[in-house]
Formats: sequence, C-alpha cells, structure tokens
Amino acid sequence: MLNIRLICVGKLKEKFYKDVCEEFKKRLQGLCKMEVIELKEEVGPQKLEKEADAIEASLLTPGVTCALCIEGKMLSSEELSAKIGRYALEGVSRLNFIIGSSEGMSERIKRNADWRLSMSPMTFPHHLARVMVLEQIYRALMIAENRSYHK
Amino acid sequence: MLNIRLICVGKLKEKFYKDVCEEFKKRLQGLCKMEVIELKEEVGPQKLEKEADAIEASLLTPGVTCALCIEGKMLSSEELSAKIGRYALEGVSRLNFIIGSSEGMSERIKRNADWRLSMSPMTFPHHLARVMVLEQIYRALMIAENRSYHK
Repeated sequence: MLNIRLICVGKLKEKFYKDVCEEFKKRLQGLCKMEVIELKEEVGPQKLEKEADAIEASLLTPGVTCALCIEGKMLSSEELSAKIGRYALEGVSRLNFIIGSSEGMSERIKRNADWRLSMSPMTFPHHLARVMVLEQIYRALMIAENRSYHK
Repeated sequence: MLNIRLICVGKLKEKFYKDVCEEFKKRLQGLCKMEVIELKEEVGPQKLEKEADAIEASLLTPGVTCALCIEGKMLSSEELSAKIGRYALEGVSRLNFIIGSSEGMSERIKRNADWRLSMSPMTFPHHLARVMVLEQIYRALMIAENRSYHK
C-alpha cells in the first residue's frame, strides 16, 4: 500500500478545517497509508530556511516529493491520478506532498522536489489548501481504483 | 455597496462546510452585501433544466452573472479582484455567482452567463467549491481595498 505523507507548515486552528481534514484522512484509510505532519511555523529572519530544514527532516525516504506551489504545473484530477499511478507502477511506495506556511516555502524545497504542483492560479490560504490537497489525493486514488465519487 | 449573490444547487450537509461558509459570510460583512442562496438539487430526467429554471429565477437583476465551470477562464486572485473592480467602476451593483450541482449545470446557464470562471483544472466537490468561491470573493474584495490578508 502506498505511503503518502502530507507535510504542512503551521497548525490548523479553526475547528472546521480540522474536522474536514479528519474526514478526508478517515476516507483515505484503506486507499493508502496517509499521514499529515504539522510543522511549527517559524518567525523572524531565516523563517523559510528554518521551515525548510524541518520539512527536509520530515520527508519519507526514499520516496518521491511534490511541492505545492504557484510555480507548479496544473493538472486535472485525472492527470494527478495517472501520475500517482505511474509512480506506483515504477515501484515508488512513498510519496511526500509539501504545503508551505503563510509565506510560502524556501526555493530550496521547490528546487529539490521531484515535481511541483499548482492547484489553481488563485491564492488560497494554506489551511484551505490542505483541505484541497487531501480531497484531491482522495479523488486521485478513487479514480485509480475506478470507484465512483461525488462531485 | 456591491450586492453579491452566490447561487448554489444542493444543500450543505456537513457541519464543517456550513461552519466555514458562515465564517466567510461573516468576514464579508462590511465589504459587500453577500447572500448565499441554496437551491434544491433535483433528481431524474431534466434535472439540470429544472435546476436552471430555479437558478434563473434566483438571479439578482439587473446584474452581471458569472458561472463557475471547468470551461471558464482561470484567473489569479488579483485578476478576479480587478475584474470585480472594473464592474463596480462601470456602475454594476449586483453580481451573481453560480455553482451547479454534483452533475454540473445546464449549458443554458453557461451560455447566458456574462462570464465563466474556473478555479482549477481539478474537479472539486461542489460543496468544497462553495467554500473556495466565498474565500476568493473575500480575498478579491480585500485586495481591492488594499487590505492585508493571510495566505
């Protein structure tokens, strides 16, 4: 079973975001081994670099890493599903997805990632982005298993 | 003050989606007159046509109407803000945004809309799309007022 680790910088404060993330994590059980890691949002100078250190220390290795960022490529849900499916065929068993903090993420993280994904040209709060990524991972795995899922 | 009506087909069932929509509606107070109209999701033949009738009956008129659909144009948050700003300059005081049901929306609604917007090439559940649109309207109005807002 695929191991997927979603690494996020910043703690969810709002109950509704926590609840919806829990809901998708629950739904993902049985489709993959899904973990969400919350790292501390740093402050002050070197904020992004300190966060990058913590992100790098949290990666599942060996594995494939995707950075969520506006410079990333946009994919449809079907293309995301196919991409994850190709990794699985190649024998990749660990996938990391990284969401930065409110200030984004260090260039180092973007550069070292195996691929970069953008969900939208719009800017969403990173907490809502977390919900959106979990939903898309769930959707991608449902598409891969050819199971129907509500739009 | 701008009147914005978000017309959605289908009732929100999950508490977390209801809560996050309420949160954005609350934040939008003072920036615009925001209304969210929930229409019944129809079943059976002519589902989309029946929903289209109800959507048309719910539009703020005279006003400008945007259909949210995958065929729409993708905009950045700044471009969405500028677009809403241009309408306001032209004297438009009523904006409608339409989100279809789980099966999307009738071609008639897309054809008759003044513009079409796509938030992502990915498919999101229409309930999550509602949260995303409310957040983007809030962000657009905050950008227009040159106020800072958390990413």
